[in-house]
Amino acid sequence: MSNKMKTPKDSLVTMTEIVLPNDTNTLNNLMGGKLMHWLDIAAAIAAQRHSGRIVVTASVDNISFAEPIALGDVITIKAQVTRAFNTSMEVYLDVSAENIPAGTKQKTNRAFFTFVAVDQLGNPIPVPEITPETPEEDELYAGALRRRQLRLLLAKRIKPEDAPELKSLFFAENK
Amino acid sequence: MSNKMKTPKDSLVTMTEIVLPNDTNTLNNLMGGKLMHWLDIAAAIAAQRHSGRIVVTASVDNISFAEPIALGDVITIKAQVTRAFNTSMEVYLDVSAENIPAGTKQKTNRAFFTFVAVDQLGNPIPVPEITPETPEEDELYAGALRRRQLRLLLAKRIKPEDAPELKSLFFAENK
Amino acid sequence: MSNKMKTPKDSLVTMTEIVLPNDTNTLNNLMGGKLMHWLDIAAAIAAQRHSGRIVVTASVDNISFAEPIALGDVITIKAQVTRAFNTSMEVYLDVSAENIPAGTKQKTNRAFFTFVAVDQLGNPIPVPEITPETPEEDELYAGALRRRQLRLLLAKRIKPEDAPELKSLFFAENK
Amino acid sequence: MSNKMKTPKDSLVTMTEIVLPNDTNTLNNLMGGKLMHWLDIAAAIAAQRHSGRIVVTASVDNISFAEPIALGDVITIKAQVTRAFNTSMEVYLDVSAENIPAGTKQKTNRAFFTFVAVDQLGNPIPVPEITPETPEEDELYAGALRRRQLRLLLAKRIKPEDAPELKSLFFAENK
Amino acid sequence: MSNKMKTPKDSLVTMTEIVLPNDTNTLNNLMGGKLMHWLDIAAAIAAQRHSGRIVVTASVDNISFAEPIALGDVITIKAQVTRAFNTSMEVYLDVSAENIPAGTKQKTNRAFFTFVAVDQLGNPIPVPEITPETPEEDELYAGALRRRQLRLLLAKRIKPEDAPELKSLFFAENK
Amino acid sequence: MSNKMKTPKDSLVTMTEIVLPNDTNTLNNLMGGKLMHWLDIAAAIAAQRHSGRIVVTASVDNISFAEPIALGDVITIKAQVTRAFNTSMEVYLDVSAENIPAGTKQKTNRAFFTFVAVDQLGNPIPVPEITPETPEEDELYAGALRRRQLRLLLAKRIKPEDAPELKSLFFAENK
Repeated sequence: MSNKMKTPKDSLVTMTEIVLPNDTNTLNNLMGGKLMHWLDIAAAIAAQRHSGRIVVTASVDNISFAEPIALGDVITIKAQVTRAFNTSMEVYLDVSAENIPAGTKQKTNRAFFTFVAVDQLGNPIPVPEITPETPEEDELYAGALRRRQLRLLLAKRIKPEDAPELKSLFFAENK
Repeated sequence: MSNKMKTPKDSLVTMTEIVLPNDTNTLNNLMGGKLMHWLDIAAAIAAQRHSGRIVVTASVDNISFAEPIALGDVITIKAQVTRAFNTSMEVYLDVSAENIPAGTKQKTNRAFFTFVAVDQLGNPIPVPEITPETPEEDELYAGALRRRQLRLLLAKRIKPEDAPELKSLFFAENK
Repeated sequence: MSNKMKTPKDSLVTMTEIVLPNDTNTLNNLMGGKLMHWLDIAAAIAAQRHSGRIVVTASVDNISFAEPIALGDVITIKAQVTRAFNTSMEVYLDVSAENIPAGTKQKTNRAFFTFVAVDQLGNPIPVPEITPETPEEDELYAGALRRRQLRLLLAKRIKPEDAPELKSLFFAENK
Repeated sequence: MSNKMKTPKDSLVTMTEIVLPNDTNTLNNLMGGKLMHWLDIAAAIAAQRHSGRIVVTASVDNISFAEPIALGDVITIKAQVTRAFNTSMEVYLDVSAENIPAGTKQKTNRAFFTFVAVDQLGNPIPVPEITPETPEEDELYAGALRRRQLRLLLAKRIKPEDAPELKSLFFAENK
Repeated sequence: MSNKMKTPKDSLVTMTEIVLPNDTNTLNNLMGGKLMHWLDIAAAIAAQRHSGRIVVTASVDNISFAEPIALGDVITIKAQVTRAFNTSMEVYLDVSAENIPAGTKQKTNRAFFTFVAVDQLGNPIPVPEITPETPEEDELYAGALRRRQLRLLLAKRIKPEDAPELKSLFFAENK
Repeated sequence: MSNKMKTPKDSLVTMTEIVLPNDTNTLNNLMGGKLMHWLDIAAAIAAQRHSGRIVVTASVDNISFAEPIALGDVITIKAQVTRAFNTSMEVYLDVSAENIPAGTKQKTNRAFFTFVAVDQLGNPIPVPEITPETPEEDELYAGALRRRQLRLLLAKRIKPEDAPELKSLFFAENK
């Protein structure tokens, strides 16, 4: 596989699932953990598509579950790589849930997963760069740097002064 | 169930699982999504124990997956509530993985999930307060406020100037 | 949901799955039955999208499994309604399998499922007509009549003389 | 394993399952895809019994799902080989569903799967011939040739003039 | 359903399964717990067939697992009721495992499960008596009384002097 | 791993599960077979902890299921080794079930599983001895000998006169 410049669309994955009884809690709503399981698989495929490599989950950013998703709903997950960082890739996921007979559809979650490309022994290996093509992809590409700084800061792998983009995001009004 | 003051230990959940073939990726390592599925169930039980209520996942904080966990490993997940906020509870999870025949054991992940207690109709309902009893529980209790501010900030439900504890955490050294 | 004329694209479903260990036989290849299970779910969602109704599987046409699909492969299933017949819909499914690290991708299967739209009691209920928009959709729309005759003939619900399109397909060269 | 002449009964497989919640759709009825998954496993075992080999699914003929099968029903699948063709075998499956507490039992489906015997590398390998012993087995044996012609015709691997038995079946009354 | 005298054969259940990856331990052998799960389902169906009722597991007798069963093996479970005791039924299960391509087959386990017939509220309800028809069924019928005494003794629901058949079995040679 | 004297507590395993829809029967209660599946996994981990080896299930003693366990209940399984016999270990399991929102908790089952430690080829291998530390552990340790005699007697591997402890248990009052 050539390491030519690739676009986010090249990595796009659409996954569609139905919420089955074993996926639900006592209120007959989808359990958050089951949704994360699906997100991880969709994101892994997107990262595979971008890198042409075996990939392993490196981290997941904060996800919130504001909307209950009911038994029988159809879940659509769209995943695509936003940006590559040497051996790692950030994947953006967008989740919507539909009750088709009721005619309702809502966006329920957004998530960012990070994957590392590895060789057969599990050692990290460089991945191609990415060229965003749309305004939304540009914004996701730019934001990826701030989210990466936040991840590294939360993991105590960098210090706040090494995260200028993050700081300006959070504390612009303090300047 | 009386709403008397409760301790983190009252909510402690220990979950033990073996990594089975369907839980693994091409490298025979546990998929991150499957681990998150287990974490969500363990955390939900801890939140149930604290609140005595049906609970629903509200959010999960950033999780990193630094260590591969292999097929056949024994996973131990310990979950306990760190702090309650009106109708929501933060749950701290600590994950370790063992290859018992090889005699190896390692801490692999830490995670924070937030749950909301709900009634039979799914409406939020207040939960008891919590009294930390050990230095580690005190620290988790104190940190819960900062993590909550970060969650609300990331969800754009508060502004940076409303998150003073968070700011001092990140930027103490700049003062 | 209005019963306005709808197009095949309105019902398009893309499902992406990874072949996991429990999906495979002794040769580490995907079992045909597991693939049919996924096809049924993808087709049901397409039929739901077209009809806006609960749907139940009525029949599946002959499927052949010419290409082995390996453990770890990424399966992409595309499903869309080809034609509606009063209360039933034919769904066309196209399956491809990729070994992304190896850089290989192949079309592996085509299938036709038929679904019936039903109300909450399980009684059949009319579905909207469909307007094909592309040459491929036109061809699938036209072929749906012959495939329906073959289904009815195989089910002994019509006689050969009631299946003129089917006859001309099979025996054109004898005329 | 000797390649002596074998009978359909030698390959008989009886599989019994209970319909569990995750096997059902919104109407609490068994999903067609789950039934096909069970059929594929039962048929594979019958083909293994006949051939004494690893087998892979080659095709499934048209199946119709006329009768809903409910949550909690007991499914009985009987599978036996009808005829062998060099390296392939046709397997006939008969499905019935019972609600034992209600005292009801019905035949719900008939199906024909075709399997190919393979060696450890997945290459086709000849299978023993079969000798039908009962009138029903004779009829299934005779019909296997017509069904095979239909499969090959649908797969465009033969032309209509090469399928005389099939033609006489469909168009006897035109002669 | 009439409560006429029934025979063990009336309740016979044959269940056939393939050992899949997720059913196996680190040595690629079937886990004992998975086999017990299948046994419980097969035995429940046999008890349903005898009683025509919903049934619940009351107990399982000592089972030993002397023979490893390998990934890919075909498991055949035969279950039939041996004797009825007012509202409960003892079910005998016989398990064999085959590696069909290797041409090996062995009996691997025997087990006895006891079920209670219940109404829709879960209250015990009388079941029909049974008439053994073969010498093996006679022996299982006679032994059922001793096994029942052992169960009751182990559950401390009877005293040793109330289990004369059991005593004579164990200690005949001491007299 | 050194073969130093170990205690029952060293092997303690706590497993926590929620009863999901697919684990339940028609009455929405946990199926006995599913519980046994969980018990086998919990017991295997305890035996692994004691022996530091791969272990295989050798037998399970009589288990009774007196109390129904409902959908949504939280199951807590505690497993620890009671005694070692050359290459085998007896594991004691204690099961309780909670309906947390209802505030109810009950002990539902006790069970004894026996495991054998094996090497990579599946051959039995000696395990460390164990030193009970509490009165309850002393009692379980003492009882293990009687239970072992009963197992061997039921498996017809010893004669009644070789089971003096068992005899005194059952027939103390006849002396």
